[in-house]
Amino acid sequence: MNVVLLSGGSGKRLWPLSNDVRSKQFIKMFRNENGGYDSMVQRVYRQITRVDSEASVTIATSKKQVSAIKNQLGDKVSICVEPERRDTFPAIALAAAFLHDQKGVGEDEAIVVCPVDPYVDDSYFSALKSLCALAEAGTSNLTLMGIEPTYPSEKYGYILPEGTGEVSKVKTFKEKPDVETAKRYLAQGAVWNGGVFAFRLGYLLKCAHEQIHFTDYQDLFLHYGEQKKISFDYAVVEHEPNVQMMRYTGRWKDLGTWNTFAEAMDAPVIGNAVLNETCHNTNVINELNLPILCMGCKDMVIAASNDGILVSEKEQSSYIKPFVDQMEQQVMYAEKSWGSFTVLDIQDGSMTIKIVLQPGHRLNYHSHDHRDEVWTVMSGAGTAVLDGVEQAVKPGDVVRMAAACKHTVIAGKEGMQILEVQLGKEISVHDKHKYPFPR
Amino acid sequence: MNVVLLSGGSGKRLWPLSNDVRSKQFIKMFRNENGGYDSMVQRVYRQITRVDSEASVTIATSKKQVSAIKNQLGDKVSICVEPERRDTFPAIALAAAFLHDQKGVGEDEAIVVCPVDPYVDDSYFSALKSLCALAEAGTSNLTLMGIEPTYPSEKYGYILPEGTGEVSKVKTFKEKPDVETAKRYLAQGAVWNGGVFAFRLGYLLKCAHEQIHFTDYQDLFLHYGEQKKISFDYAVVEHEPNVQMMRYTGRWKDLGTWNTFAEAMDAPVIGNAVLNETCHNTNVINELNLPILCMGCKDMVIAASNDGILVSEKEQSSYIKPFVDQMEQQVMYAEKSWGSFTVLDIQDGSMTIKIVLQPGHRLNYHSHDHRDEVWTVMSGAGTAVLDGVEQAVKPGDVVRMAAACKHTVIAGKEGMQILEVQLGKEISVHDKHKYPFPR
Repeated sequence: MNVVLLSGGSGKRLWPLSNDVRSKQFIKMFRNENGGYDSMVQRVYRQITRVDSEASVTIATSKKQVSAIKNQLGDKVSICVEPERRDTFPAIALAAAFLHDQKGVGEDEAIVVCPVDPYVDDSYFSALKSLCALAEAGTSNLTLMGIEPTYPSEKYGYILPEGTGEVSKVKTFKEKPDVETAKRYLAQGAVWNGGVFAFRLGYLLKCAHEQIHFTDYQDLFLHYGEQKKISFDYAVVEHEPNVQMMRYTGRWKDLGTWNTFAEAMDAPVIGNAVLNETCHNTNVINELNLPILCMGCKDMVIAASNDGILVSEKEQSSYIKPFVDQMEQQVMYAEKSWGSFTVLDIQDGSMTIKIVLQPGHRLNYHSHDHRDEVWTVMSGAGTAVLDGVEQAVKPGDVVRMAAACKHTVIAGKEGMQILEVQLGKEISVHDKHKYPFPR
Repeated sequence: MNVVLLSGGSGKRLWPLSNDVRSKQFIKMFRNENGGYDSMVQRVYRQITRVDSEASVTIATSKKQVSAIKNQLGDKVSICVEPERRDTFPAIALAAAFLHDQKGVGEDEAIVVCPVDPYVDDSYFSALKSLCALAEAGTSNLTLMGIEPTYPSEKYGYILPEGTGEVSKVKTFKEKPDVETAKRYLAQGAVWNGGVFAFRLGYLLKCAHEQIHFTDYQDLFLHYGEQKKISFDYAVVEHEPNVQMMRYTGRWKDLGTWNTFAEAMDAPVIGNAVLNETCHNTNVINELNLPILCMGCKDMVIAASNDGILVSEKEQSSYIKPFVDQMEQQVMYAEKSWGSFTVLDIQDGSMTIKIVLQPGHRLNYHSHDHRDEVWTVMSGAGTAVLDGVEQAVKPGDVVRMAAACKHTVIAGKEGMQILEVQLGKEISVHDKHKYPFPR
C-alpha cells in the first residue's frame, strides 16, 4: 500500500522532551527488541511494515523535521518536504503531486493518508490496508476511518453513516462541531473521523487542480507559500457527496499531553531514576546523565532533558503550554541528519557543545563571521577539512578554526564524538555560511 | 572571644546538594546583602563577627572540607585539620593543642566550642560570649548551653540543673537517653544540651593529657589516627562534677533534613524555576543551568545539582539516606581552594570538565600516568606551566598534556574558565602525582 504520514506539530505540550526542533513523535519512549527505545515515528513505521512488508511510506513534513526523520528512519521512507506550514489540504495536494511526478505512482493506485503519531495496535494498519482496497475498488471517491466516540468532543470531525455495518456510505460529515451539535450527532449514531483518508491518486490530483493553480510537483513546491491555509476536511471532505467509511474499533489514542503520554509508557521509568515505595502512579523520563530520586510522589510526571525539568501533577500537566511559551527557547539538544548536538555550557563569550557524528556522516561545510571554534576529538577517527585542506584526526587531536575559516569533519566507520568550544562576543545560530562540500 | 567551630558530616541527607566533598554547611541558601547567597558557614561567621568583631575563629574539620572553607571564608579563619575522623573528644583536644601551640592562646583564656551549622539568631552568639565570660570567671570547669526542650528526643544530651535561673550549676548530665528516661528527665526540669562547651584552655589541655598520651600539637597530629573514637560528652562532660550551664531561649534549629532546610529558606525558589499557581508549600533549589517547571506540586522539595535531582514530598525526604548510599557517588561538582570544577560529560574513554579558577589562584602542579589532557581556555588569561616551561594563555588557546607531563595553570587577575578534556582508558581521580610548584 501507499501510505502518506502527516508529520506536524512543534510539540510544546510535551516540554522539555519536545521543543521547536523535536516534535513529540521523535521522543524515544517505546521499548524495542534490542533493549533500546523507539520513538512514535519508529514504532508506526515498524507497525506498517509488519502488516505490509511491501508498503511504500512517504512522510509529509516541514524542513525542520527532516534531520530527525533521517536520523531515526534512515533512507527507508520518502520525505515530501513542505517549504512552509500550510495546513493539511495543501500538504496532501503536494504529497499527491510528489507521488505522481517524483515517485511514478499511477492515478488508479490507492493512497492512504494518516497522522504520523497514532498510538494504536497493528490492527489499525490492517484497517489502513482495507481502506486502500476499498478506495482502489472505486465505489466511493473518498474512504474515511470511523472511530467509536466516547464523549461529545469538540476536537474531532463527525461522520454520520447511512448504515450500521463495518463499511457504509456516509450521509453527513461535520468538522469540529460545538458540544450541543456533537451530542445531536452522537444520538444519531455518528462516529469520530480518525483523520485517515483513502482515495485513488487521480481523484486527489483532480481536487487539487480544481482549487490550486499549478502545473506539476515542482511548480506547486515553488508556489507553496502562496497557498491558503485550509484543512483537508474543510477543503475536500465536507464538499464531497460520494464518501464511504469503515469502522475501526481497536486501540486509538492521541498522546498529546503528558497525562496520555505517561499512560502509554511501557514502564514507569525511562532513564536513570529511582522511585521509592511511597511513590504512586508516577512516571519519569530522564534523558539527563544524572540520577533522579523520587520520594512520596503521587500521580506525577517528571521529565528531564537538556532543555529543562518538568515536575508536574498529571492533571496539571495539560496546562503546560503558556509556561513553556514564556521560556527562553535556547535549543540545548537536537537530532541532525548527521547525528546530534548537545549544549554543555554557556558563558558570556563562549559556548561548549558536544557533537556526535554517525559513522560516515559529516557536518555541513561552513564558516562563521564572528566566532572562533576549537574541536577536541573525544572518540572515533575521521577527517577534518579546513579551507579545503584535509587532515586525519583521532582522539585527543585538537583542531582550531578562526572566524571565516571554512570547515567540516567527516566521521570514519566508528562515528565520532567531538567537543566544540565556540569563542566570540556574538555567538548565534544565524552566524553561519554554508558552502558546497569540496570533495 | 575564641570560638572553635566543629565542622563535620558528609551530609548525604541533603543530597544532591551535599555529597562526599560538600557538606550541608557549604550549600548556598541564605540571601546576602549583595543579592547572592551565603552558606551556613558564611552566615555563622558573619553572625559571630557581628556580635564580636574581634572574635578569633578556628574551624576544626577534616582535610576534605579545607578547600570549601578556604573558598568560602578565605583566610579569615584558622583551620585545625583533623588527619582523619575520630569524633569530638580527640577533635577538641587537637583544637586545644592547636590554639595553645600554634596560635599562642594562654591557658587562662576561655574557649567556646560549638557546631558549625546551628540555624540561630545573633542572640545565640551573644550567649556564646556570656559563656566565655562565665568560663573565664572560673567558678566551674565546664560551662554548657541549655536549650528549652520540646519533646523527649533520643538524639540529645540532657542537662538537669540545680536551679531554675539563667545560670545554674548542673546536677546531672546524661547523653542520649532512651525515650522513657528522657521523659523522666523532662519531668524533673531538664534541658537539652546544645552541643556548646566553654572552658579555660588549661582545663581542657589537662583533660586531654589525662586521657591521651601526647607531648604537643605536632605529636597529637601525627598520632591522631591511633586515638579512640569518643565524643566529648562521653569522655569529659559525663565525668566532670563541676559543671554549670546557661539557658538559651532564642531560635535554635538543626537543618539536617530537607524538611527543616526548606523551612529555613528565605524564598521558595533558589535558582531557575517557575512554580505555577497550583503549587503549595513547595521549595526548589536549582543549581543546574536548566529551567525547572513545577505544576500542582504540594508539600514538596525539589533540589537539582550536577550530582542529581531530588523530587520528594517533604515528609518523605527524611528517609533519603539509604537511597543515596546506593547511588554511585561520582562527584560531579566540587569547590576547591582555587575555585571549582564541574563534570560536563562522561564517555567511555573520555571525561570533560569545566574548571573555574579564582583570580590569582592555580591548580596543584601535577601529572597523570594513564591519561592525556587538553585544555581550551574559555575566558580569562593566565600562565600554563608544562614540565617547568611557562607559557601565557588567553581565550581560545589550547594546551595539550600527554600522560606524565607535569602541569598547572595560574589564573590572572580576572580568574579563568577552562574546559578540560581527559582522554584515556582508565580515568580515575586517584591517577594523580603532585609536585612542588617550580616557581
